[in-house]
Amino acid sequence: MNVWDQYAPELVTDLYEFTMAESYLKENMSGEATFSLFIRAYPHHRAYFVSAGLEHLLELIRDFRFSEASVDYLASTGKFSRDFTDYLKKVRFTGTVRAIPEGRIFFTQEPILEVTAPIIEGQLLETLVINVIQLETLLASKAARCVHAARGRALVDFSLRRTHGVDAGLKAARASYLAGFVGSSNVLAGKIYGVPVFGTMAHSYVTSFKNEMDSFLAFARTYPDDTVLLIDTYDTLRGAEKALEVARRMSAEGKPLVGVRLDSGDLVDLSRKVRKIFLDGGFPDVKIIVSGSLDEYSLEKLLEEGAEIDLFAVGTRMGVSSDAPYFDIAYKLVEYEGRPILKLSSGKKTWVGKKQVYRFYDEDGKMKEDLLCLLEEAVPGGEPLLETVIKDGELQRSPESLERIRERFAGEWEKLPHIYRSTYPVETYPVKISADLSELERQTSEARRREEIEKEW
Amino acid sequence: MNVWDQYAPELVTDLYEFTMAESYLKENMSGEATFSLFIRAYPHHRAYFVSAGLEHLLELIRDFRFSEASVDYLASTGKFSRDFTDYLKKVRFTGTVRAIPEGRIFFTQEPILEVTAPIIEGQLLETLVINVIQLETLLASKAARCVHAARGRALVDFSLRRTHGVDAGLKAARASYLAGFVGSSNVLAGKIYGVPVFGTMAHSYVTSFKNEMDSFLAFARTYPDDTVLLIDTYDTLRGAEKALEVARRMSAEGKPLVGVRLDSGDLVDLSRKVRKIFLDGGFPDVKIIVSGSLDEYSLEKLLEEGAEIDLFAVGTRMGVSSDAPYFDIAYKLVEYEGRPILKLSSGKKTWVGKKQVYRFYDEDGKMKEDLLCLLEEAVPGGEPLLETVIKDGELQRSPESLERIRERFAGEWEKLPHIYRSTYPVETYPVKISADLSELERQTSEARRREEIEKEW
Repeated sequence: MNVWDQYAPELVTDLYEFTMAESYLKENMSGEATFSLFIRAYPHHRAYFVSAGLEHLLELIRDFRFSEASVDYLASTGKFSRDFTDYLKKVRFTGTVRAIPEGRIFFTQEPILEVTAPIIEGQLLETLVINVIQLETLLASKAARCVHAARGRALVDFSLRRTHGVDAGLKAARASYLAGFVGSSNVLAGKIYGVPVFGTMAHSYVTSFKNEMDSFLAFARTYPDDTVLLIDTYDTLRGAEKALEVARRMSAEGKPLVGVRLDSGDLVDLSRKVRKIFLDGGFPDVKIIVSGSLDEYSLEKLLEEGAEIDLFAVGTRMGVSSDAPYFDIAYKLVEYEGRPILKLSSGKKTWVGKKQVYRFYDEDGKMKEDLLCLLEEAVPGGEPLLETVIKDGELQRSPESLERIRERFAGEWEKLPHIYRSTYPVETYPVKISADLSELERQTSEARRREEIEKEW
Repeated sequence: MNVWDQYAPELVTDLYEFTMAESYLKENMSGEATFSLFIRAYPHHRAYFVSAGLEHLLELIRDFRFSEASVDYLASTGKFSRDFTDYLKKVRFTGTVRAIPEGRIFFTQEPILEVTAPIIEGQLLETLVINVIQLETLLASKAARCVHAARGRALVDFSLRRTHGVDAGLKAARASYLAGFVGSSNVLAGKIYGVPVFGTMAHSYVTSFKNEMDSFLAFARTYPDDTVLLIDTYDTLRGAEKALEVARRMSAEGKPLVGVRLDSGDLVDLSRKVRKIFLDGGFPDVKIIVSGSLDEYSLEKLLEEGAEIDLFAVGTRMGVSSDAPYFDIAYKLVEYEGRPILKLSSGKKTWVGKKQVYRFYDEDGKMKEDLLCLLEEAVPGGEPLLETVIKDGELQRSPESLERIRERFAGEWEKLPHIYRSTYPVETYPVKISADLSELERQTSEARRREEIEKEW
């Protein structure tokens, strides 16, 4: 049984979305609701987020419907009425989605997207919306940090083997490419997303030959135009000497040795010695590629300590965002039938109402501050971040290509001031709250407090 | 474009598996190779692993073949010969897989599985094997720790919204059920794996009504036999008082209030006060359910401090294994054409040869120690952990049900001594190395050192 044969995005959902929906239907609650998706707080060492995942989500919302098999399964649980399962057979998304496009930079509290629709439709999407947007945003944000730490050197995604499943592996390849990686080892991502694919040999290849030199020569025979040799299987410096000999032999046949890869040991010391071997040997163009437990922290450290590296193969720690494997992200009801909505649960603030984010730039074109306000407010001079991407259930534009999103991110990055780009940021970007929003929040909060806590019932 | 329409497990692979395979083919290297999958080291606070993912992997290996579209894509990269793409069209897995069954407990250095096959076949599976086994083993191991910390209280998986994609969400539901959770909020996991599904209401439900009491009464109308009320939206204790009133009204109609859920605040203090409200009110059977940023550490702390909790809804931190989001897991070539294989890369030890693990128990039936040895060694009195699950490409048994695997884990758990079960273990389980394996490792290592490092070439 192949799991993906049974994949049904309409069931990528917590059960309570359905039990609530059944109750909304029974209570004839079909009013218009607005849900807002946002990240509450920065994880350690984060000062910005990179929007990603929207294109996938839009496709899922556009095609949202319940197959007969899905409805049959729900009916089989015995938890739902016939009225409700009949309703599910016909339900489509008929609402509006406003969202920050992929590749843009955003900050805490800012809605990544807002869904306005009959309450059941908005509710049924909750789990799917969070699952899709959080992962891709998480990975794009982590990858952007690695690109920054690499100081202009190229990066390739090597994470597939240790990502959390196949879905995450594909998204790591796409998100890291979006953020500026040059490609991925992930072949399926190459096929599906057109991400350039990279890769040469593993230790198993080297060790399967009777000796290291034989393995190097065999690989050069197979890939005379694209030879990268893994030189740390037995001893990195001896490996480099052998690779230099391969470079000489290849050169005699008019072929270049493209590079060598180091995957273990003291990478600062070894990379410098390997560079010297190739410089002294007359092959200054042989690239030094490094892999093994890399992330933005180790990249920064390696380069600060003078490592000689031309390309980083970044794997597991980027692909699982190991230092921050999740965001405190929430999809909250903020308005129902025109009424502003919030909860008072301690430590979990939500901004009420339909909202917009306006961005302001300084005279150098750098991001200066954002203003979070109510959708209906007019904010002269600000650039609105959320765009209407679905209206009355219809997509408002054609899908964006990954290349276009990648270019958008590159442009955004130029506008992000250095202090927020840092691997160890100490300041947070100013997100101001409009006076109208603050006031509505205050009034709503007080009214709720009076009604639910102070009042006798 | 739905990604899963283009899913092709044969391409869930790092590109270098294909470039190596092309070279093996060109060099006529079709000898028998053995690859071994193992975890090198324990992450922080881990002292055991729970085997999971094998059933999925066996299905993938059994069905392993290249679709025309996949071969066309590989050809389109321009990196492969016609001979090689023709080879791929026909390739099937013809080898042997020996593995530790799902639900068993194992330790570092021990092979979770070994693949013996013509080298190309074993090589092409590398990325898929690691991706499938690491994730499910990671999640089952994390979930087992949560079950232990819950001290007999029930646990439900609530992680889907923040798992790394859909694939990971399904596997979190399955792995946590395997490890003893009672079910999941994940509806698709209910449909595909038969995991019991749970869920009632979110804050959005409560806030969509004009007041909290209305929302409670509406839910009780919809689900008179299965009412769990979320009581922390505005104020937990006021919420509990309202829920008590709902319990009274339901009771008058012969219906029980099943439970209340707390999702924020000081859970120790609040859960005790909520319990008192229901005890004083004459409803001692109302269950107290708690959710929100839970993991084994917070569970243990809550119970030690006297929280009154009957069921834990454990989400994100379990579903992404947040304190250890990956294992140092490797799939290494250990034998080729009868020759023991290892690499010498610093800090990355691999045990050579085809291996078996034997387990020994003490007089109380508790695990005492394991012995890692060569497959051909006879070890009287030991229980072998790896079983032959695929031979000559054929599955050797029918698929195991999740229920059976869950029972196996429950049995294993009883045999694991308390010191290793701890949330903060201080000792590691003894895995001894046989004299023959040690000696072969030593000889191989020395021979490699002489050949690759000391010898002039």
